[in-house]
Amino acid sequence: MKVGFVGLGAMGLPMAEHLAAAGHDLWVYNRTHQRAQPLHEAGARIAATPAEVAQHSDFVFSMLADDAAVEAVSFGEHGILSGLSAGKVHISSSTISVALSDRLALAHAAQAQGYVAAPVFGRPVAAAAKQLWVLAAGEPRAVERCLPLLSALGRGITQLGDKPSAANVVKLSGNFLIASMLEVLGEAFALTRKAGISPDAFLGVFSAVFGQSSAIFENYAKVVAKGGYEPAGFKATLGLKDVRLALEAAEALAVPLPVAGMLRDHFIAAIAQGHADVDWSVLATMAAQRAGL
Amino acid sequence: MKVGFVGLGAMGLPMAEHLAAAGHDLWVYNRTHQRAQPLHEAGARIAATPAEVAQHSDFVFSMLADDAAVEAVSFGEHGILSGLSAGKVHISSSTISVALSDRLALAHAAQAQGYVAAPVFGRPVAAAAKQLWVLAAGEPRAVERCLPLLSALGRGITQLGDKPSAANVVKLSGNFLIASMLEVLGEAFALTRKAGISPDAFLGVFSAVFGQSSAIFENYAKVVAKGGYEPAGFKATLGLKDVRLALEAAEALAVPLPVAGMLRDHFIAAIAQGHADVDWSVLATMAAQRAGL
Amino acid sequence: MKVGFVGLGAMGLPMAEHLAAAGHDLWVYNRTHQRAQPLHEAGARIAATPAEVAQHSDFVFSMLADDAAVEAVSFGEHGILSGLSAGKVHISSSTISVALSDRLALAHAAQAQGYVAAPVFGRPVAAAAKQLWVLAAGEPRAVERCLPLLSALGRGITQLGDKPSAANVVKLSGNFLIASMLEVLGEAFALTRKAGISPDAFLGVFSAVFGQSSAIFENYAKVVAKGGYEPAGFKATLGLKDVRLALEAAEALAVPLPVAGMLRDHFIAAIAQGHADVDWSVLATMAAQRAGL
Amino acid sequence: MKVGFVGLGAMGLPMAEHLAAAGHDLWVYNRTHQRAQPLHEAGARIAATPAEVAQHSDFVFSMLADDAAVEAVSFGEHGILSGLSAGKVHISSSTISVALSDRLALAHAAQAQGYVAAPVFGRPVAAAAKQLWVLAAGEPRAVERCLPLLSALGRGITQLGDKPSAANVVKLSGNFLIASMLEVLGEAFALTRKAGISPDAFLGVFSAVFGQSSAIFENYAKVVAKGGYEPAGFKATLGLKDVRLALEAAEALAVPLPVAGMLRDHFIAAIAQGHADVDWSVLATMAAQRAGL
Repeated sequence: MKVGFVGLGAMGLPMAEHLAAAGHDLWVYNRTHQRAQPLHEAGARIAATPAEVAQHSDFVFSMLADDAAVEAVSFGEHGILSGLSAGKVHISSSTISVALSDRLALAHAAQAQGYVAAPVFGRPVAAAAKQLWVLAAGEPRAVERCLPLLSALGRGITQLGDKPSAANVVKLSGNFLIASMLEVLGEAFALTRKAGISPDAFLGVFSAVFGQSSAIFENYAKVVAKGGYEPAGFKATLGLKDVRLALEAAEALAVPLPVAGMLRDHFIAAIAQGHADVDWSVLATMAAQRAGL
Repeated sequence: MKVGFVGLGAMGLPMAEHLAAAGHDLWVYNRTHQRAQPLHEAGARIAATPAEVAQHSDFVFSMLADDAAVEAVSFGEHGILSGLSAGKVHISSSTISVALSDRLALAHAAQAQGYVAAPVFGRPVAAAAKQLWVLAAGEPRAVERCLPLLSALGRGITQLGDKPSAANVVKLSGNFLIASMLEVLGEAFALTRKAGISPDAFLGVFSAVFGQSSAIFENYAKVVAKGGYEPAGFKATLGLKDVRLALEAAEALAVPLPVAGMLRDHFIAAIAQGHADVDWSVLATMAAQRAGL
Repeated sequence: MKVGFVGLGAMGLPMAEHLAAAGHDLWVYNRTHQRAQPLHEAGARIAATPAEVAQHSDFVFSMLADDAAVEAVSFGEHGILSGLSAGKVHISSSTISVALSDRLALAHAAQAQGYVAAPVFGRPVAAAAKQLWVLAAGEPRAVERCLPLLSALGRGITQLGDKPSAANVVKLSGNFLIASMLEVLGEAFALTRKAGISPDAFLGVFSAVFGQSSAIFENYAKVVAKGGYEPAGFKATLGLKDVRLALEAAEALAVPLPVAGMLRDHFIAAIAQGHADVDWSVLATMAAQRAGL
Repeated sequence: MKVGFVGLGAMGLPMAEHLAAAGHDLWVYNRTHQRAQPLHEAGARIAATPAEVAQHSDFVFSMLADDAAVEAVSFGEHGILSGLSAGKVHISSSTISVALSDRLALAHAAQAQGYVAAPVFGRPVAAAAKQLWVLAAGEPRAVERCLPLLSALGRGITQLGDKPSAANVVKLSGNFLIASMLEVLGEAFALTRKAGISPDAFLGVFSAVFGQSSAIFENYAKVVAKGGYEPAGFKATLGLKDVRLALEAAEALAVPLPVAGMLRDHFIAAIAQGHADVDWSVLATMAAQRAGL
């Protein structure tokens, strides 16, 4: 297939290399042409503008750092939209805003071009190892046609329906999960370190209880997905108790635990609203309720 | 070995059953004697008080719901401390406060009794399946002598040094991690649901990216344990961008994301203090810094 | 003076009426012309577009609900910028973003027009009673020329330098203070109500201690402005103690106090960083420190 | 009257001096006797223990730093409870926990002694100037008899019913309001400083808009006390807009505003639950609702 690739950064380069390796006919563009050299040596042609990439392609990937960069390569005289023929597809893999994804969807539709949002999970090392997890959303036939290309990029694909920006919401939610874990780990390691426990020892417990091959977080995700755990395995009052004990231990050691303070509030609100005996996954129910669900 | 068990609730009963099955000579106590019946049929003797359990045991487990319950069976005329001979060991598996654990350690030491904190990770179903993960901390020789018993309860043990309450800190930290995950999952599912993504679809992504067999959270725990990721794989500024985009998407759908709001603050503080180009695991560094580490 | 007024909503109408009453020659514009009728009867002329208002004015006020509305009346063929002669001044009283205020400043400068940001504090009833407090920032001579007009609107003016958007930052900060007070009052009234104290009784205490004629908040603002209270009148450790006691009382009554939870964290962080014996106004110092100040 | 005073710290000493000046017959106790010297010279007698103070008094004030100190002077062989005759009254002015206040109430009742909680608002300088505001709660006749003494301490009294600890809840709520204001001021000054506005300039605005003689916070307290502002003077959506603009301005300047982030969540939750067009005092309604009110 004739494939274009715009944006050859730490993520984009290995992704484009997989497409080249899969035998696709590649046109590429990067702001600094130097980055394209390895691909050029592997047979890809280097375009002077994103529009030129689009002119030569049935599918054009874009993979850039942020909204501004994606806007810069998409719109305007030299942008992907101005070069792409009707029926051809822009595959947007960048982590961009829902608003920009919606705007791109409209703009492409207005020109009878396809637009598929296909953000990916994984750091550059996963991109290089073809271990990305790929999301895909957009008009079903357009997505269908992209699948062989997306399969070349990683270890699997989740399709998320016909609204492209749904994939962006899911990507942002995933990064939110990771950042939250970093925060919570930071707080937990701070507490345990000040309690005299070596980071390696706490890491050992984390690995044993929550690490690879543990199903614990996945099981809780299932509970949240189906709307709460019944009957209560571990009541909200016990959840509140444990969070309070963590806060007390932390206060005695002068360790702030802002997430724990927030959990405490949410447990108390649940109890105030009559859910004292509900499973502690009520935290998720309360989050849904605050959102009006 | 002569083993006692005080507290035969949803967790305690299956734990005691494993000890019985392992061939230990068991004395047990529960507030409502009825609960002890299955163990009695398996050969265990039922005591009238915790003290009586202690009199007949080299090691007495206690496994109860909270501080008040553990205090009730430990102190006083009929408590474990009053029945235990010098040199014998109280193994406290309940999730209790650091303060109570410290107090128990002192009280037992004053009577030349051993005290080992051995809280466990796992719900009742894991207890029944001998899949608990057991923590252990206390005077090394006492812990050493407990290991065969603790091994009978689960799939592994992490030893956490000679201060018993260190094990309680770790147990509380673990429950804090789980409750945090419930909160964050609740927020993420609320966002994706209001964006029109079915809970099953988002669960599918969670399972693929973060679920069993994914090393992602464990890898981040390693990063946090060793004090931050260098060189930056994903900069703080990009972390802030993604959290901001999640918040914007959520605001457009009227979904509160309190944890994301907090992450935003912590990223901004990191940037204000000169860490814009540091890996986004700087969230953990900031948590340590707030704690004076 | 020849004065224009664009936006005759709940705030704009009484403001324009004060300008008319002060004897100025008034041209006005409102999306729904009906709103302009009372002013028309008082002698003001009604323009068909914001540009027409600007053509007839030396100074044009705009007072609208949000950025979008201000953009709509400022830019484009029929906007204020297209009608205003060089040397004439746009006085922007709306509560708008810093970004839009900066953009307006640039756009007006590019056309040799003046631009003064003059947001106001006060609800419509204060506007009607000429009790607004007016902020003003912009090029000094432009501000100087506006002062007689601004004086006609309220009980006083604070000048905030030559960068217009500084006034917008201050206006937003003021609204942030009010919203914060609403939140904190909401939490405090919830706690006291559940403790059996009537809202009227707690209101009585609030009025006596913090109400009109109390200098307490103003005194704390002075302390914060000069960078902290020395020597400590009330130590951070005592502040932490009282917040903890409030949280404990609230938990016993099942009242979430999210702001109190956050204060607790910030006190603990202050103590962890060596400020245990500093005055509790250290909370403000920590806020500055988090911002890299 | 025969009055005792236990605790002659920065607050207690000037309070006791007012009682002496009012002509009461004073017995006093302080852990370090040295502090009592000025009172002794004014005619007060110095007791060796709190019990001795109580033996000579119809009313015994206690004014100490925290729960532990109040427990130490109240209970035990040498404590106030052991010295006080039936029908005499302990007036507890310390800022203590609700739990301790409830415990003191029970203990005094068991000995047919009176107990009045009478915490005060004001720093030491206000105590010296007789400008404290005094709360009082307890059995009505006991409170009645204390009023002449309490009047000697400050500029006014609010009575809060017959449950002593209600006064402690109100005192803690008041300190929570002050600490919240310190936090919010800290955030607002950090933002305005980084925006180039001098602390003095922002202080000027604060004084003009929110300072002494401004009724703004008191008016909002009235709104909250009566349960919300109707009709909406300023809608929740506008409140959210302004908080968002403050957060955006702050992010551009790298200033974390944690309270603003929380307000944002609470506005969004209000909107998600159908209150978009309600006055922004809906923040207080949401706080009540979270508490199950």
